[in-house]
Amino acid sequence: MFGDRLAQRVAARESQLVLGLDPDPQRLWPAALEAAPATGSPAERAAATVAAHCRALIDAAAPACVAVKPQLACFERLGGPGIAALAEVCEHARAAELLVIADGKRGDVPVTAAAYAQALFGSTPTPFGDAPGLGADAATANPLLGRDALEPLIAGAREAEAGVFILVRTSNPGAVDVEDREMAVGGPLWESLARMVDDLGQVGESGLSDVGAVAGATAPIHLVKMRELMPHAVFLLPGVGAQGGRVEDLAPAFRPGRAGGLVTASRSIANAAGDSGADHGQAARAEAERLRAAAWALDG
Amino acid sequence: MFGDRLAQRVAARESQLVLGLDPDPQRLWPAALEAAPATGSPAERAAATVAAHCRALIDAAAPACVAVKPQLACFERLGGPGIAALAEVCEHARAAELLVIADGKRGDVPVTAAAYAQALFGSTPTPFGDAPGLGADAATANPLLGRDALEPLIAGAREAEAGVFILVRTSNPGAVDVEDREMAVGGPLWESLARMVDDLGQVGESGLSDVGAVAGATAPIHLVKMRELMPHAVFLLPGVGAQGGRVEDLAPAFRPGRAGGLVTASRSIANAAGDSGADHGQAARAEAERLRAAAWALDG
Repeated sequence: MFGDRLAQRVAARESQLVLGLDPDPQRLWPAALEAAPATGSPAERAAATVAAHCRALIDAAAPACVAVKPQLACFERLGGPGIAALAEVCEHARAAELLVIADGKRGDVPVTAAAYAQALFGSTPTPFGDAPGLGADAATANPLLGRDALEPLIAGAREAEAGVFILVRTSNPGAVDVEDREMAVGGPLWESLARMVDDLGQVGESGLSDVGAVAGATAPIHLVKMRELMPHAVFLLPGVGAQGGRVEDLAPAFRPGRAGGLVTASRSIANAAGDSGADHGQAARAEAERLRAAAWALDG
Repeated sequence: MFGDRLAQRVAARESQLVLGLDPDPQRLWPAALEAAPATGSPAERAAATVAAHCRALIDAAAPACVAVKPQLACFERLGGPGIAALAEVCEHARAAELLVIADGKRGDVPVTAAAYAQALFGSTPTPFGDAPGLGADAATANPLLGRDALEPLIAGAREAEAGVFILVRTSNPGAVDVEDREMAVGGPLWESLARMVDDLGQVGESGLSDVGAVAGATAPIHLVKMRELMPHAVFLLPGVGAQGGRVEDLAPAFRPGRAGGLVTASRSIANAAGDSGADHGQAARAEAERLRAAAWALDG
């Protein structure tokens, strides 16, 4: 099951770092641009270049990482060619022995949630044979529609030994608008979401559940309470680096073991070279290794 | 702007009916299956057949409808070919003078919300020229992440004279788990979401806003209160037919005018022939016309 698979992988790679892939076609590494195809539609040429950029980024950072987290929006905006690029990038990550966490924050009524499960984790029966899905090892999900909307997604993930990370408290300033809203029973809404996450998960021998939580690293004050409410959940911790979060603040996440927290970073790794003229791959690898070591040194 | 565009279109077509497109490859009309391509991968053959099915469904039901609502999950599960089929189906709907409401219930942090806006409403700048998005006239969105996560999506929509329908109170039983939860200030969470919708929208000469609400038709008891909280919002009303909602219960939605409520139906139209042996297209057209007339006859 997912919790155990993840714990093994984190131990083997000595890393809790997740490489975020949210490629902006206007900000790709020069080597990818130079190898761009000379013909095709803008979407086709951009998608091929995005794929080359992501492959190079994976090649650079993979030794310091346990997973990649492609941001689906960044591929979807390039249409069919973008989706083909996404599949290719996921394949490249798997070949580098990285897990794939599909970040699409899906959430819909039960019949549609089952369709998303087919797209992300399983396959879709058709009269022409099964159409394979993305084969993700985990995906992010939005809990606003309630338990019956999450259950088909979790069931589909579980069948593939994959996991689901449910939004509990996100890293953007607007999280105060809804997630932090005070409930009649006391406590903010996100505490109710945390209880739902704890309830929906199945716990493996590692002590980790297959239903985790997206827990924004920009509000570390909440991590202690989150850990109390979700003792077995893996926390996916976005917001490190570009969004202002610091690895050093994340210790409570790792209380159930090192795989209890996954630190995600995207732009801070991909753009590590900045305008310094340094090699993009080397700068990315150094920044990924710095983040990996900082997280690994923490004691929950 | 969207509210005015919609009001004009509803008046011209004398319809508030939205044809939901959530094709299941195992349940396509026989004529589409018979015309399926003989070669290609399962996803390619299924996507071509799904596109043919949706085109036939649009041809049958279009005279009674004002818009189509493709369910993005149903196309995404067929990968790149599925996304190409989605684009083709949207083009076919536009040629039939129908609006396109992309139903993906997206919601993400601001930088990602901007990428979704490019994918749905705008285009994506690339070094090879702009990559066009889906060109949707409206899309559904999830408000859990708060205002700053909705604003880039709304800004992108507004630039294209498109609209955003924000989840307020959905039609699934699980809506009680989070959306109906009682807040410390009194009232359920969905009332807070309704106030946010009212606040985010811009109102046109028609009296309708460009930010609407997804308001499940399975809980009509809420519609009066919703209309009070969102006097200018267009309500997208799923749940009619297969999910148990009845057109007759929806009158409060239409208080600001006939375009104040859009009645969506998917399976009840596509599967109207059932196992009766009747022609699928004729049965779909008759059911769509029945729903159209029932909604049009209501007085808000």
